[in-house]
Amino acid sequence: MSPKKQEYVVGIDLGGTKIYAAVVDKKGHILGSARKRTKAELGFDMTIQRMATCVELAVAEAGVNMADILAVGVGSPGPLDLKKGRIIETPNLKWQDAPLKADLKKRLQRPVAIDNDGNVGLLGEYAYGAGHGSQDMVGLFIGTGIGGGVIINGRLLHGFNENAAELGHMILNPDGPLCGCRNHGCLEAFASRLAIEREIRQAIDGGVASRIFDGLDQPGAMLRSKRLSEAYGANDAAVVQAIERSATYVGYGVASLLNIFNPEVVVIGGGVVEAIGQPYVDIVQRVASQNVFKIALRNVRIVAAELKDDSAVLGAAELAWQKIAK
Amino acid sequence: MSPKKQEYVVGIDLGGTKIYAAVVDKKGHILGSARKRTKAELGFDMTIQRMATCVELAVAEAGVNMADILAVGVGSPGPLDLKKGRIIETPNLKWQDAPLKADLKKRLQRPVAIDNDGNVGLLGEYAYGAGHGSQDMVGLFIGTGIGGGVIINGRLLHGFNENAAELGHMILNPDGPLCGCRNHGCLEAFASRLAIEREIRQAIDGGVASRIFDGLDQPGAMLRSKRLSEAYGANDAAVVQAIERSATYVGYGVASLLNIFNPEVVVIGGGVVEAIGQPYVDIVQRVASQNVFKIALRNVRIVAAELKDDSAVLGAAELAWQKIAK
Repeated sequence: MSPKKQEYVVGIDLGGTKIYAAVVDKKGHILGSARKRTKAELGFDMTIQRMATCVELAVAEAGVNMADILAVGVGSPGPLDLKKGRIIETPNLKWQDAPLKADLKKRLQRPVAIDNDGNVGLLGEYAYGAGHGSQDMVGLFIGTGIGGGVIINGRLLHGFNENAAELGHMILNPDGPLCGCRNHGCLEAFASRLAIEREIRQAIDGGVASRIFDGLDQPGAMLRSKRLSEAYGANDAAVVQAIERSATYVGYGVASLLNIFNPEVVVIGGGVVEAIGQPYVDIVQRVASQNVFKIALRNVRIVAAELKDDSAVLGAAELAWQKIAK
Repeated sequence: MSPKKQEYVVGIDLGGTKIYAAVVDKKGHILGSARKRTKAELGFDMTIQRMATCVELAVAEAGVNMADILAVGVGSPGPLDLKKGRIIETPNLKWQDAPLKADLKKRLQRPVAIDNDGNVGLLGEYAYGAGHGSQDMVGLFIGTGIGGGVIINGRLLHGFNENAAELGHMILNPDGPLCGCRNHGCLEAFASRLAIEREIRQAIDGGVASRIFDGLDQPGAMLRSKRLSEAYGANDAAVVQAIERSATYVGYGVASLLNIFNPEVVVIGGGVVEAIGQPYVDIVQRVASQNVFKIALRNVRIVAAELKDDSAVLGAAELAWQKIAK
């Protein structure tokens, strides 16, 4: 049962903007990693190729051989068809019915396990991070989109069609902004990085001061986390306003999730939370606490993800280990 | 294990406006029942007394003796402290920390099991009604307030503090109307009978035609389901508008719940749904279907509760049977 010392898995975090792959041992240590831009606009095949290259680079950095890799886990934007291993649709990446599992398996010649990006992010925090030891968890990961995950009695919630926990698509105002999923007023449409960027632009158009786009080669380019972080730290008015709006809506979403799931731990992570840090989590905590039954807060922790950028990649690795254990 | 023929339980549906008790056999047949107004405004002790009277009347109607009653189950507004058997707070009944289980047990001298009204309503539909045979269900019960329940892999979701599934308190617009729970824009504040009544009054104040309050002794009296049903059937403009708004918001709530839980069956019940019937469910289905990932709808049924007024009382009876089986 216990793997030999030279046995590893690879976890892959497939995001809207980047691919991140890591070679991971049984204890959750990362031995080597690599990143590439997703470039989803070049098509699904090209992204598969970039994922494979990422794996090879991570394996090389770890100083191991592909022969030592027992399995590969992937956290992917969804919804997914887990039985067929396909991406059904991805609002942000624009793919439909993409054979993620089969194509990656063919390319890498290794067993592949896939799950929703939110699920694997939460699985990472459950196994190695902020939720370690708790059995009832909810996770929200605020990046380009918003991924979610739910663990009940120690098990990931998958649902009837294996597409539960699309927490970014809770409706927080049916008359709200258009979401990537084509509906209006989802949490994601209020609070994702794309929503933050939209709010900053609207604020600037409305005359709010901001230096966030100064010196950007392409004015339309997506804001990087680092830039967002620096502007927030420098008290850039438009950025502060947009970030606070994002965190406030995440707080409303967390309030709903507390009333719905009554979990022990709510983990807030993803690129936006990593960029802003505790001030973001503080707003989420405050807004959630003000909008929920007191009982649903008792001994409940609303905390930042601990694994930061590694939560999805470690959760994907955990998924790979679980696949081997089956 | 199997009860003798002369063994029964009593299920009690404790609602914001009425108490409904029924003597139930192991197969879910109702042998006798009784109803009384809750009169929560007279205090918790008085309501306990009225519940006990209801039980005695139901037992008499069933032609059995209190000695034949093995246990009593209660579906109560929450949140509840299930371990202590207490009502922690009830936005609609205004009680706080009420010892429901202990007081009723003392009064009836029988084992008492309690759970959230939404949970027992769903348990009834799971055991004997619209969700029979499915293992992943979500229920919404639209009455004076809105109760909810969730069944995952055949088990009621209770959560870390046993207060999960407060689905009526999902936030559907943080700037929405004040809710009984003191927050703004909960599903309940948009769609409950109290919300419908508020909308009708506002529409009338705004000049919309309505005969709904004609001939009511007290203009402030709560609208009965029958009156609502008749006015809707008569195409009363203010009533149709308010009902459609209620069903539309329930539809948004169901869309969120489909994305969150991806259940196999969504059961919609409660006094408002019983009063209006399939036209209400049709709106919920349409709005939910338009605002959700397609995958979360595949082979999913959004249906009216089948047990109507009996869902909570039969679920409470099922709770009592489960208590004995323990």
